[in-house]
Amino acid sequence: MLVLITYDVNTEDAAGKKRLRRVAKECVKNGQRVQCSVFECLLDTAQCKLLQASLLKIIDTNKDSLRFYYLGKNYKTRIEHFGAKAGYDPEGTLIL
Amino acid sequence: MLVLITYDVNTEDAAGKKRLRRVAKECVKNGQRVQCSVFECLLDTAQCKLLQASLLKIIDTNKDSLRFYYLGKNYKTRIEHFGAKAGYDPEGTLIL
Repeated sequence: MLVLITYDVNTEDAAGKKRLRRVAKECVKNGQRVQCSVFECLLDTAQCKLLQASLLKIIDTNKDSLRFYYLGKNYKTRIEHFGAKAGYDPEGTLIL
Repeated sequence: MLVLITYDVNTEDAAGKKRLRRVAKECVKNGQRVQCSVFECLLDTAQCKLLQASLLKIIDTNKDSLRFYYLGKNYKTRIEHFGAKAGYDPEGTLIL
């Protein structure tokens, strides 16, 4: 299933900046960055729970916001992109 | 239906900062800000097309990114929130 992850990390202090870097790094490992704080990840339920647990260990739940949107398997018709950094196909072939 | 709107506006110059303010203002008029650049909007198809058209007039499609995610009517089970700024119910009663 496609899981959309969005986050706002409070970067007022150095600890916040560190959390932001760690959240981004964890998301990069698990999916595709489509915007600065928006990732699309193809995960099964177990992988999703693991990623959730990792991210919850990183964020400060009093200061940071983390949202998961479950777009299911038939997500292609649910997404529309406009402008720069065109959409990608997370199941597509990677051409090097 | 619930439409999730996410954007990245390139704010390198003053024109970009102005676009960002205008995009945010347009989204605020049409939905609920759940994160800095993430809005959830309850719209019908016509309203959604109008909002899309308005936003496309504002953004610079060479520099800015705009994504629409269509979460349908049964969106409640599709969203999970963690941390600060807890989720809201877009159909809920507004208590003043």
